[in-house]
Amino acid sequence: MTGFTHHPWLKGLLGDSKAAAIWGPEQQMQHMLAFEAAFTRALGSAGQISADQATQIAKLITDFAPDLDAINSAAMRDGVPVPELVAQLKRAAGADAGAVHTGATSQDVIDTALALTIKAFNVLLADRMTTLATDFETLSHQFRDRTIMGRTRMQAALPIAFSDRLVTWSHPLARHAARLERLRPEIEVLSLGGAVGNRAALGDHGDAIAAAMATDLVLFNPAKAPHAMRDHIADYANLLSLITGSLGKMGQDICLMAQQGIEEIGLECGGASSAMPHKQNPVLAELLVSNARFNATQLAGMHHALIHEQERSGAAWVLEWMILPQMAQVTARSLSAALELATRITRIG
Amino acid sequence: MTGFTHHPWLKGLLGDSKAAAIWGPEQQMQHMLAFEAAFTRALGSAGQISADQATQIAKLITDFAPDLDAINSAAMRDGVPVPELVAQLKRAAGADAGAVHTGATSQDVIDTALALTIKAFNVLLADRMTTLATDFETLSHQFRDRTIMGRTRMQAALPIAFSDRLVTWSHPLARHAARLERLRPEIEVLSLGGAVGNRAALGDHGDAIAAAMATDLVLFNPAKAPHAMRDHIADYANLLSLITGSLGKMGQDICLMAQQGIEEIGLECGGASSAMPHKQNPVLAELLVSNARFNATQLAGMHHALIHEQERSGAAWVLEWMILPQMAQVTARSLSAALELATRITRIG
Amino acid sequence: MTGFTHHPWLKGLLGDSKAAAIWGPEQQMQHMLAFEAAFTRALGSAGQISADQATQIAKLITDFAPDLDAINSAAMRDGVPVPELVAQLKRAAGADAGAVHTGATSQDVIDTALALTIKAFNVLLADRMTTLATDFETLSHQFRDRTIMGRTRMQAALPIAFSDRLVTWSHPLARHAARLERLRPEIEVLSLGGAVGNRAALGDHGDAIAAAMATDLVLFNPAKAPHAMRDHIADYANLLSLITGSLGKMGQDICLMAQQGIEEIGLECGGASSAMPHKQNPVLAELLVSNARFNATQLAGMHHALIHEQERSGAAWVLEWMILPQMAQVTARSLSAALELATRITRIG
Amino acid sequence: MTGFTHHPWLKGLLGDSKAAAIWGPEQQMQHMLAFEAAFTRALGSAGQISADQATQIAKLITDFAPDLDAINSAAMRDGVPVPELVAQLKRAAGADAGAVHTGATSQDVIDTALALTIKAFNVLLADRMTTLATDFETLSHQFRDRTIMGRTRMQAALPIAFSDRLVTWSHPLARHAARLERLRPEIEVLSLGGAVGNRAALGDHGDAIAAAMATDLVLFNPAKAPHAMRDHIADYANLLSLITGSLGKMGQDICLMAQQGIEEIGLECGGASSAMPHKQNPVLAELLVSNARFNATQLAGMHHALIHEQERSGAAWVLEWMILPQMAQVTARSLSAALELATRITRIG
Repeated sequence: MTGFTHHPWLKGLLGDSKAAAIWGPEQQMQHMLAFEAAFTRALGSAGQISADQATQIAKLITDFAPDLDAINSAAMRDGVPVPELVAQLKRAAGADAGAVHTGATSQDVIDTALALTIKAFNVLLADRMTTLATDFETLSHQFRDRTIMGRTRMQAALPIAFSDRLVTWSHPLARHAARLERLRPEIEVLSLGGAVGNRAALGDHGDAIAAAMATDLVLFNPAKAPHAMRDHIADYANLLSLITGSLGKMGQDICLMAQQGIEEIGLECGGASSAMPHKQNPVLAELLVSNARFNATQLAGMHHALIHEQERSGAAWVLEWMILPQMAQVTARSLSAALELATRITRIG
Repeated sequence: MTGFTHHPWLKGLLGDSKAAAIWGPEQQMQHMLAFEAAFTRALGSAGQISADQATQIAKLITDFAPDLDAINSAAMRDGVPVPELVAQLKRAAGADAGAVHTGATSQDVIDTALALTIKAFNVLLADRMTTLATDFETLSHQFRDRTIMGRTRMQAALPIAFSDRLVTWSHPLARHAARLERLRPEIEVLSLGGAVGNRAALGDHGDAIAAAMATDLVLFNPAKAPHAMRDHIADYANLLSLITGSLGKMGQDICLMAQQGIEEIGLECGGASSAMPHKQNPVLAELLVSNARFNATQLAGMHHALIHEQERSGAAWVLEWMILPQMAQVTARSLSAALELATRITRIG
Repeated sequence: MTGFTHHPWLKGLLGDSKAAAIWGPEQQMQHMLAFEAAFTRALGSAGQISADQATQIAKLITDFAPDLDAINSAAMRDGVPVPELVAQLKRAAGADAGAVHTGATSQDVIDTALALTIKAFNVLLADRMTTLATDFETLSHQFRDRTIMGRTRMQAALPIAFSDRLVTWSHPLARHAARLERLRPEIEVLSLGGAVGNRAALGDHGDAIAAAMATDLVLFNPAKAPHAMRDHIADYANLLSLITGSLGKMGQDICLMAQQGIEEIGLECGGASSAMPHKQNPVLAELLVSNARFNATQLAGMHHALIHEQERSGAAWVLEWMILPQMAQVTARSLSAALELATRITRIG
Repeated sequence: MTGFTHHPWLKGLLGDSKAAAIWGPEQQMQHMLAFEAAFTRALGSAGQISADQATQIAKLITDFAPDLDAINSAAMRDGVPVPELVAQLKRAAGADAGAVHTGATSQDVIDTALALTIKAFNVLLADRMTTLATDFETLSHQFRDRTIMGRTRMQAALPIAFSDRLVTWSHPLARHAARLERLRPEIEVLSLGGAVGNRAALGDHGDAIAAAMATDLVLFNPAKAPHAMRDHIADYANLLSLITGSLGKMGQDICLMAQQGIEEIGLECGGASSAMPHKQNPVLAELLVSNARFNATQLAGMHHALIHEQERSGAAWVLEWMILPQMAQVTARSLSAALELATRITRIG
């Protein structure tokens, strides 16, 4: 789902325009065409088609402007957009239709396109986590002498340095950044399995074609197409929810610090109320909590999608489509909200 | 979230255009303006403003074309679109600004708008469930002499009439229709509580104003504004997931009946595969399963949102915004998919 | 699962001994035997066996002491305890073995036993909700002149009467009590469907036998055995989570009111800390929050179990066994914790 | 919760006695005492108490037989068993009470005890995954020439080698084993933070004491006590659910292969039915699916527990207690069920 991107007055609060672009249909189509072009080029490098044909057809694919309405109609019947997209490409290729997609399958296209989306999104995630780490360091320095009340079980315990609290926001983020690097080779992966996942239709050339495509698309090349093994996807969803969960802790802390009677934090520019114009609400801190609970909830669905029957589960696979893009966009929004919050802290203690 | 409505090639498969319109921002804005107009009229009927003023300002509100970009910008700060919308209305009302919104609060506006959305959506739900019940009766008659294998724990047990299986699809739907009627007085409700939910700013006129508004908007009028009591919302989400869950059972049954080697059902027009053009996939039946698991997952989030601290929780409330509209649209899509499936069954047994 | 009942030092905090007894294996076995005895008696009243035989065998069943170790071993193979239990009963009945269970199935026994458990548990739930309603009235009277700060989005808004806050704890409970009464005819139900749910093995006597059993066991008698229609179970789980969710809101409010700097509530006897002996922790209020989040989480699983393939799903059914008993016990514990909390409030405002 | 360990006739099917012992209260108490003894020894090595005193008191702690009923009663008030356990130890230590626990806090004890439990449990997990990998290799060899029908979207596609299907069961397990090794340094960790997590009460000796304890208990020593940073726990829960999810895929595949009309697998000793004695049910394969859905559901709760307010959240922490032990035991049971299933496959294709 494309989330709040198109909502006229919630897109600013709940959406993330950069993440929405990365996850949007335009990019998704580019990635699907990139798969098909790379496949055709790899057929050429494997000697299955001539070098000229490969170059020509790959260019045709790359430049192709698909009839999206026809794809939408066909997807209602096929459950996936690929058969109609491929049919359009094959028609465009005319006599060279055999150089298009032959030996690949819908899931190869869509899962590889997803991997390309995630690869682009990981750069955004890593960038924001790096910037946030810097902002936390700045806060730590700026308020290095500030003391707040340490609270356990929501009760005042003993005074602590603000930096002690800040560590509980920053250390997990550093771990998440390391987790992201660790996951990249598992999630930024080519899928090339063909109809039933074993590359049978590509004969002896399957592995060479896959290797060439992975190099071309700058993706990792797993031993077996992950059609029915979705642990890498569920594991990635786990990371997204770990990120929002840690930021949710930060948000909850800020909400509690901002309470009248506690007032251990000052924030520039909290939100207004329609009934009480002068009240300041810690809107972004609350959003961190909402987003954390949203992703925690969604993660269960991604793990149910692990039960992916046989060589391809239509039901479990579509469940991923419905959940993962939203989790990603919500994660991006939490990071941007945390970045904004971090720079709005005007007073501690 | 507006879900798949805007997705160029998944909107047909995963979206539901009627439900999307009901839940869309245009209707939401109309409902928010309807609240404000009804509030102003009720101020008039309660003698708080003159009858003329009430009529005039209510008309101004009803016809108002808000500056959505300004609302989007303000919502990023305020966490809700209402303060800026009200500010625009008050500016338009000029000297009569006091006849706009005064004594109400953001949550009154948004929750009442939600109730109006749900009221419209309930008609769609009820209609589709009624039609589906009829389709089930038709199927029961059409295949009244067909026998299939009864299966328990996924193993063949003893032959049963097809109508025995069909009952497990149709009886729950009949119960859900009854549940919907039962819930309507609890969910199609006015919210009018003011800043902290107790109508204090409306003085002695609060109850009269609420009664007038409920009559005007054709909503039920609960004893207390439900700002921080969200059981009706979570209960409604439960009903949505019950509906998709029962349809998921139907979908799973059809997927299993359609298997080669079992072949107890014939479906017109299953989907194609990009690798094997002649294979027929039970796409809509799978979608019923995906949607059931989607809503089952989401329901947890709606119940977490019950923990709604104090007089209004920003965090729990926004979590509802992120989840409920999607659950509703997915439910509508499951009903339309089931309706389509029911008419495509060409053979049983 | 039997939950924390057996945990030597957490059973007091997290367990509920009364609920554990109702949901415990001893009661479950009694209910399974009650099903079998009622079935045998109904065979007698339907004229399938002689009245004497019915009386005699029903007595044998009622008094039967099963070999639980043998049942445990067999359940590892069969997935259910019933085949071995029935084998033991049939052996004990000797020549009258045909008067035992013949025409019924495992799911009839286990689901009817569950209905009897729930019936007993509903009395406990209703009692505790009634008492809690009374306690809330007492609190409302006791602190009728107390004012606290109304808080929205975790920020001070305007003062409210304590009774305004209390309403957000008590009104939902009153609705839950009404919901429980409404659900009882749907959940306190006999299951008698036989091998594939259609009572085929009971011939023309099936409906009469079911009616007699329902009267005997004081259960409702649904039109069709609910083997593969689990909406009533998921709906009941929803009610359990609504109860804990509303109590979670009360718990969260109390935790927030008890904070140093806010101090709007006094509680007798909060918990101690190992590091700071004089600190008082609102342990029971926190527990209400934990339990609410626990049940909100579990509810998703109960809705996934709606996707109950064909005439009986081993997988979905067992998922219910793993989740529902815990949800019930946690609900009972939240009610007892709320009852204890309500009597420990010594100061408001 | 101790799960099904104590259930007289479900413990064999649903419980795992080895995992139950590792997660049981006896071991938990041993680990809590191990923490306290190591803490006392570390006080000695840091020169805070004499070497003799350290040895003597550590021995007293190690040999201590706590009054569990008193701890149960106190935990109802304190929310944790530690204050009363420590009080008992201090009483036993008499004049040396200062050498017991002083400077540590409840969460240090319980979280370190959990780390010791997990450390023991990881050995069980690793062992079972290793054995299962070997069993998969054996199956791959045994049925190396067997062909089954490859199925996508639950429809027959093209024949595949059985080993192609087997890879989708075995490859994820190999990845999970690697993930477990990767997580061990993050999850097998000492917690020593004291009252508010910053080791303030231990003065300059805190880091030395922690280092000595980690060496003593053979745990990793993180930079900061993880009191309020729970990403490692949620990440571990993710791994548990990844394991059960992958095994759930295997279970679902086996259920589908075992269907009459498909019959691509032969299993020794499937379960019996009370109504149809000769029917064979794939009970353990179904259990793999139930357990996968159970853990997928629970994982959401563990991620909600990431929102751990301030220096210690009573509510979020207890939620972990309620969920994680069950997830672990269910994971162990899925592994034992998969091991049993793998050896019962008598025929493929």
